[in-house]
Amino acid sequence: MGQYAAPLRDMQFVLHELLNVENEVKGMPKHADLDADTINQVLEEAGKFCAEVLFPLNQSGDEEGCTYAGDGVVTTPKGFKEAYRQYIDAGWPALGCDPEYGGQGLPAFVNNALYEMLNSSNQAWTMYPGLSHGAYECLHAHGTAEQQKVYLPKLVAGEWTGTMCLTEPHCGTDLGILRTKAESNGDGSYLITGTKIFISSGEHDLAENIVHLVLARLPDAPPGTKGISLFIVPKFVPNEAGEPGERNGIKCGSIEHKMGIHANSTCVMNLDNAKGWLVGEANRGLQAMFVMMNAARLGVGMQSLGLTEVAYQNSLVYAKERLQMRSLTGPKAPEKAADPIIVHPDVRRMLLTQKAYAEGARAFSYWSALQIDKELSAQDEAERKEAADLVALLTPILKAFLSDNAFECTNHAMQVFGGHGFIKEWGMEQYVRDARINMIYEGTNAVQSLDLLGRKVLGDMGAKLRKFGKLVTDFVEAEGVKPEMQEFINPLADIGDKVSKLTMEIGMKAMQNQDEVGAAAVPYLRTVGHLVFSYFWARMARIALDKQASGDPFYKSKLATARFYFAKLLPETAKTIREARAGSKTLMEVDEALF
Amino acid sequence: MGQYAAPLRDMQFVLHELLNVENEVKGMPKHADLDADTINQVLEEAGKFCAEVLFPLNQSGDEEGCTYAGDGVVTTPKGFKEAYRQYIDAGWPALGCDPEYGGQGLPAFVNNALYEMLNSSNQAWTMYPGLSHGAYECLHAHGTAEQQKVYLPKLVAGEWTGTMCLTEPHCGTDLGILRTKAESNGDGSYLITGTKIFISSGEHDLAENIVHLVLARLPDAPPGTKGISLFIVPKFVPNEAGEPGERNGIKCGSIEHKMGIHANSTCVMNLDNAKGWLVGEANRGLQAMFVMMNAARLGVGMQSLGLTEVAYQNSLVYAKERLQMRSLTGPKAPEKAADPIIVHPDVRRMLLTQKAYAEGARAFSYWSALQIDKELSAQDEAERKEAADLVALLTPILKAFLSDNAFECTNHAMQVFGGHGFIKEWGMEQYVRDARINMIYEGTNAVQSLDLLGRKVLGDMGAKLRKFGKLVTDFVEAEGVKPEMQEFINPLADIGDKVSKLTMEIGMKAMQNQDEVGAAAVPYLRTVGHLVFSYFWARMARIALDKQASGDPFYKSKLATARFYFAKLLPETAKTIREARAGSKTLMEVDEALF
Repeated sequence: MGQYAAPLRDMQFVLHELLNVENEVKGMPKHADLDADTINQVLEEAGKFCAEVLFPLNQSGDEEGCTYAGDGVVTTPKGFKEAYRQYIDAGWPALGCDPEYGGQGLPAFVNNALYEMLNSSNQAWTMYPGLSHGAYECLHAHGTAEQQKVYLPKLVAGEWTGTMCLTEPHCGTDLGILRTKAESNGDGSYLITGTKIFISSGEHDLAENIVHLVLARLPDAPPGTKGISLFIVPKFVPNEAGEPGERNGIKCGSIEHKMGIHANSTCVMNLDNAKGWLVGEANRGLQAMFVMMNAARLGVGMQSLGLTEVAYQNSLVYAKERLQMRSLTGPKAPEKAADPIIVHPDVRRMLLTQKAYAEGARAFSYWSALQIDKELSAQDEAERKEAADLVALLTPILKAFLSDNAFECTNHAMQVFGGHGFIKEWGMEQYVRDARINMIYEGTNAVQSLDLLGRKVLGDMGAKLRKFGKLVTDFVEAEGVKPEMQEFINPLADIGDKVSKLTMEIGMKAMQNQDEVGAAAVPYLRTVGHLVFSYFWARMARIALDKQASGDPFYKSKLATARFYFAKLLPETAKTIREARAGSKTLMEVDEALF
Repeated sequence: MGQYAAPLRDMQFVLHELLNVENEVKGMPKHADLDADTINQVLEEAGKFCAEVLFPLNQSGDEEGCTYAGDGVVTTPKGFKEAYRQYIDAGWPALGCDPEYGGQGLPAFVNNALYEMLNSSNQAWTMYPGLSHGAYECLHAHGTAEQQKVYLPKLVAGEWTGTMCLTEPHCGTDLGILRTKAESNGDGSYLITGTKIFISSGEHDLAENIVHLVLARLPDAPPGTKGISLFIVPKFVPNEAGEPGERNGIKCGSIEHKMGIHANSTCVMNLDNAKGWLVGEANRGLQAMFVMMNAARLGVGMQSLGLTEVAYQNSLVYAKERLQMRSLTGPKAPEKAADPIIVHPDVRRMLLTQKAYAEGARAFSYWSALQIDKELSAQDEAERKEAADLVALLTPILKAFLSDNAFECTNHAMQVFGGHGFIKEWGMEQYVRDARINMIYEGTNAVQSLDLLGRKVLGDMGAKLRKFGKLVTDFVEAEGVKPEMQEFINPLADIGDKVSKLTMEIGMKAMQNQDEVGAAAVPYLRTVGHLVFSYFWARMARIALDKQASGDPFYKSKLATARFYFAKLLPETAKTIREARAGSKTLMEVDEALF
């Protein structure tokens, strides 16, 4: 049951009409020849694969889940292995990878678009290649030449998959207190012992080898986060020929039973003198791992966009078909027993919320991926730096704002189905359960908000935020004089001003009391998230205004969704700004015993 | 895993210090002799039963779920039957029932308190006796003397259970289009044929008979809601001795697989010439059923309070034990590897949100139950009418505001657990899944909001709302001059004014366009919900201020929670008022094809 079709028209709108990527890549030697047609063909093919191969496995995968067969063996649900074979045979893992290692060398924004579709079709399945891509990025950035030669071609081909092994039973957010130990063998390798939990894709039957990236502590390491090193710990140690050799001492001890993403194995990984090789410098493992963690955070953004889109598509079909009650303004389908529920204002609110959040997320996340491409590949150093700053600033918003929205949206989609939404058979409650993890893993959304407010904004006295602010004010100045843009520019300028004031205010308070940062962070992130969405919705409205005379209903729809966003979703900031302003007093003055 | 202890101290605070029920019942001849000690003893006993018998079955019940064994037979999870036996042996079903039929005749507010605890312990289990109590109330109000004689003693004793059979595959909210048919046998009985779905507790192994209350249509019935009649359709037709006799033609065809409340059977009920007896007048079945539906809506409020409370208790324990990161203002537990997470402001926000919503819901729902007692039992007719109006006005808020809050709160509780919250073993994700149904069944929360705004508020030009408003303004006038109450009275008075203005505004717009009601209803309900909570929090703050010098930390805690409520939760109204004001334009101007 259910349906998914890749939203190609809107993806193309974002890439070509909003971002003009064909023009942008001209400034990137690596990608300069890429044209719009090629991009569109790739997306179309990917969309077919997702709709035809992965989507049909989503509900059955949830129902069946992964199985721990004992002795370290994990079986994925029926069909997963075959789908993965098709995926690698078609070369999809290589899409955004370095040609030096067999990659196709396409920009990050194309890979991001692929991941939106993969996640719409099957988030649990997509976590297998998704983590592999993160491991690829980490080793590509920090591995030795030898490590890159051995591991990258296998990861790029999808023949081996990857994991990130961070969490331990007593530490998730607080990696500084991790206990897994690494001792030198004297031959360049290390023996690693410890227990890791919550290891997504930690063990499975999709690939012949698994490349674990493991955080551990060397004997002489200083305490805390400055004493953590990163190691490659392959399931099978590659032999001389670079093929899987000796079975390594890292083994899945059990898998978790979870609320959602049942079809992705969440493993307890026991390391018992497992052989590992240092990645990057000793004691600087967290910095190296940050490449993978940032990739994973962007990945959560794409998961969240994917779920929002597919939930929207399904609830829209249902809202047009389900007949229930008459419109308050009189029958709209008098020939039927009742009107389709899409006539009811609140059903429309739930649908348009999903549409506005999906399309806003698409614009924002594809634009962010384009910034990553600029950071990696722009010719001009200043441009690379500028893009890197914007990516650093916006990564926590991509992770947290989009995953909050996806949870809200999948819940709306489920609510549109009424009682049927609660029944597994209809497939809607799975989206809610799957979306729920996105607010937790890869750093909870509260951790993201502290990263945004504490590190990214206050940490450089607002410098990075002002860079984004400049994009906003430039657009406001260019468009603010045009009467047809008033309805979009005024609220955009207004939320921009409010964010500036709020940031200053919190910054001042934080100088007296650091708890003010912790108290304001979550509503602050939601507020800045809306500034970002307001900016993209205003830019999209500009294009839609220009083209509405074309007669293409797409632009009318875009314009209507923009208007809905400003009228009905942006007002959330009236709440979040007040919450942020309310400060830490009522939170912190309560003695622990009084809870 | 997990824990629950009945929050007796706060229950007693609400009943005795806030509501002064011992004094209130003096005006009700039926209950005039009831004293506080008796109430407290009942609550204490009930709390023990809930914590010791029902709570241990909650997680196992979720995991095992109900089983459809074929041929209409449904088995409940292990231990459910024995717990039910203990429940009826102890006489709990009789607590709030009429002594004429074996009841103990205690007021509704005592029964409500019982249901809070039952639901904290095990919502899925509680739905079996919960629906029976609804059937009892419906037959007590509308059954013939003969029907009452046969059915009520069995329901009161809990030997038989009840259901409400409304929904059909093509109609949930829209009962007007239901198709189940009833034809007269000419002997006072009817033959009923049709299919009902989503019948909670529709079949099970807890009791020897099940009393289905079924909506169906007589052959000559007018179309729509004015052609629906209500019938008793027992699973076993009572024989002359009043004991279960002939098996009736109503049979469970299958049970649903759901997101949550796994341990309650959600049945497809097939009626094939099932024998039924008319309840109340022909074609006025919906009115008779409303007694049960209103009871069920209040029941959903108690489910939601119950889940909020138990989720809070568990997340609080975890937040005090789990060590992760240091406080932003420096180590608070320097002797430990990290600080307990309760030192972090956002963890406190999540905990205090649950505390404030649980305690606010307790005050509001117990007060509402007291109004029901007044409606049923006050000596003075004007008092009965006044109470009835308040109950009618506030029922949709009890259902929707409390269930929205419970979903938010159980999600906060789960989030406090971080990654562990997503793992079934820890028990927190079950609360989220169970809480989710409360926003859907017994009329979705959007339907509740239309009931509130369209029927209860605009339907009588605000008369009932003004009755509640008078309680608020009386309190504001009495307390507004006292300096120590400014911090509570000012925001209360402010939200009161805003609700008045918003109501007038929507009323004016609705006269032009009924869709304005549908567009504003959901945020309007949230806004009025906060007016209600502000009122109760201000009243509770008044008592806490008076008693804080006593040295009992309970009052300090209450005061701190009140301050948190006004600082951090009431600001939601800044959003909801804007949303409500934004009207229907951006929702309705979008052509269906443009979605």
